[in-house]
Amino acid sequence: MNNYEKGLKVREEVIGKSASQAVSESLRDIAPDIDNYTLLTFAEFSERTVLDMKLRELITLTSLLTQGDTAGQLRVHLQGALNVGWSKAEIIESFIQCLPYVGFPRVLNAVSVAKEVFEKQTD
Amino acid sequence: MNNYEKGLKVREEVIGKSASQAVSESLRDIAPDIDNYTLLTFAEFSERTVLDMKLRELITLTSLLTQGDTAGQLRVHLQGALNVGWSKAEIIESFIQCLPYVGFPRVLNAVSVAKEVFEKQTD
Amino acid sequence: MNNYEKGLKVREEVIGKSASQAVSESLRDIAPDIDNYTLLTFAEFSERTVLDMKLRELITLTSLLTQGDTAGQLRVHLQGALNVGWSKAEIIESFIQCLPYVGFPRVLNAVSVAKEVFEKQTD
Amino acid sequence: MNNYEKGLKVREEVIGKSASQAVSESLRDIAPDIDNYTLLTFAEFSERTVLDMKLRELITLTSLLTQGDTAGQLRVHLQGALNVGWSKAEIIESFIQCLPYVGFPRVLNAVSVAKEVFEKQTD
Amino acid sequence: MNNYEKGLKVREEVIGKSASQAVSESLRDIAPDIDNYTLLTFAEFSERTVLDMKLRELITLTSLLTQGDTAGQLRVHLQGALNVGWSKAEIIESFIQCLPYVGFPRVLNAVSVAKEVFEKQTD
Amino acid sequence: MNNYEKGLKVREEVIGKSASQAVSESLRDIAPDIDNYTLLTFAEFSERTVLDMKLRELITLTSLLTQGDTAGQLRVHLQGALNVGWSKAEIIESFIQCLPYVGFPRVLNAVSVAKEVFEKQTD
Repeated sequence: MNNYEKGLKVREEVIGKSASQAVSESLRDIAPDIDNYTLLTFAEFSERTVLDMKLRELITLTSLLTQGDTAGQLRVHLQGALNVGWSKAEIIESFIQCLPYVGFPRVLNAVSVAKEVFEKQTD
Repeated sequence: MNNYEKGLKVREEVIGKSASQAVSESLRDIAPDIDNYTLLTFAEFSERTVLDMKLRELITLTSLLTQGDTAGQLRVHLQGALNVGWSKAEIIESFIQCLPYVGFPRVLNAVSVAKEVFEKQTD
Repeated sequence: MNNYEKGLKVREEVIGKSASQAVSESLRDIAPDIDNYTLLTFAEFSERTVLDMKLRELITLTSLLTQGDTAGQLRVHLQGALNVGWSKAEIIESFIQCLPYVGFPRVLNAVSVAKEVFEKQTD
Repeated sequence: MNNYEKGLKVREEVIGKSASQAVSESLRDIAPDIDNYTLLTFAEFSERTVLDMKLRELITLTSLLTQGDTAGQLRVHLQGALNVGWSKAEIIESFIQCLPYVGFPRVLNAVSVAKEVFEKQTD
Repeated sequence: MNNYEKGLKVREEVIGKSASQAVSESLRDIAPDIDNYTLLTFAEFSERTVLDMKLRELITLTSLLTQGDTAGQLRVHLQGALNVGWSKAEIIESFIQCLPYVGFPRVLNAVSVAKEVFEKQTD
Repeated sequence: MNNYEKGLKVREEVIGKSASQAVSESLRDIAPDIDNYTLLTFAEFSERTVLDMKLRELITLTSLLTQGDTAGQLRVHLQGALNVGWSKAEIIESFIQCLPYVGFPRVLNAVSVAKEVFEKQTD
């Protein structure tokens, strides 16, 4: 298994197979190298230790929320966060923790994306 | 113990007594209400459940790193992260996790502040 | 009247009853605490003196415009700014004042939201 | 030819006549001064030497990508970049160059707008 | 009086003669055109009506606080805000108003610059 | 020559040997992996075609200027831009081109770093 295949496997595990395919398809014609770079990143980071994948997804969500203009990526990683074991309540709580540091607008934007993602869940 | 006293107690536990006093002193003459709002925030968030203080500090660090122009706050919460039980290696790893989402500059800035804070530690 | 009721009263006065209800409804199931925090914030700030509510809404608009990715909040506070007595011309002028500090994109985004809000007005 | 007429001529050359008209129309009723300021800026910058219009559009694209929440302006200047002679491959490559400095989300957002603009092209 | 002279006059009135000279000196050798553009901007905006210079400086402060990494410009416009008639208490209050929209770090940064500027005042 | 050695060679060519060593030294004890990632990035991007290294440095400068809070990285890549063949006048002109998109503060910050870097040059 080369690094691309390995990255694909990890990406599918984290964000789900259909989201992973959607990323590849959206980039295939216009910027396939960027898709490849995301795969190499997933491969590389899956071998890093010290923090597990669950904590990594929490960090990712927080960074995306804080950065702003990241609805597309938040959608993908909200699903990722659920997949690696965070509950909906924990995810929302992580957003609330950002409130004193980024203010209401960034947090409300993230909640709005979470609402959309959570409603598609059937647990 | 009223909410201000409670917030002060929590703030001292998290970021340390001397950093807590430095915040109060820097705001005392010019904007004491802002100091009070930080105390009320610490009091309020210490009563929130779902995520513990250790995870909260990780989220805080990530949000500060991502936002940029937050060296002063990073300094305080890097100490806070150490105080609530994160190792230096885990903190640096959390910064590395942000790399694909924010790029090198934000991460290098945070590492630079961490270097300064870690060197003052004697463990 | 407790602080939540007071905050609700102030929020309804500033952004209007239907926008206030929309905020509550959008957060009710997923993050009711965030709705409560906005109410407490409105209650708290309505008691602050030094600057009146009219100046506060101007500051809020400017901060939202500058931050970016705040269309939802701009929509609410553009209505708020009209409700507390700013004219459409004054609001647009406040956007133009930001031009040298943030450049065209942020200003054009805000104008685009203002256009949508102003067209719903019947004055 | 006064400065407004000159700016209009330059703007039409760079972003195309229909996009230029769309800008004017969207601002006509609500903020005509902002349209005028964009015209004066185009007039002024077209007289600047040292860097040609082709390099200027590359810089503009990079700045818009990095800033975030600039889909509307990116749309206009992606067309502009094509008009002044950049190929689609060069534009995408300029986005990839930003990856280490801003991370995936900003780059993926810009690619998504580029996809939409490129598909309307018939070359 | 041409536009540069007029802009210089307005800039000196707003931010003070010594700060105005410092801006010119810092840009003289490396980027005199940027100094000229600031003068033209001051000239242009001094002729705009609808909002007076006092409100303009409040908007400027808010935009700078929100944007981040603007300590240099905040220093200049804090002095400007005092010069056009805002009290220290009103300026701090305008910062506090930003708290729910941008969070503590941006506000604390601005307070820290204000402290430095206010201490140089002798009123 | 492995990828780390290759990246080191490219990094030394672009930003200069002493700046390259300073990066490594600053990260050696605290976050050597980040240094390695920058080397891999330089190696990877040096093999990309479509845009040459000169254009890449221009894009990098623009992205850093726009992002804000990047003085450290700007310092390194201003030297890089000079090394790959941009003149001081062209670099300043690229900053001026950003003015309509990001406003004065970001541009003035970058000019201030450029001033410091240019004064160390002896051409």
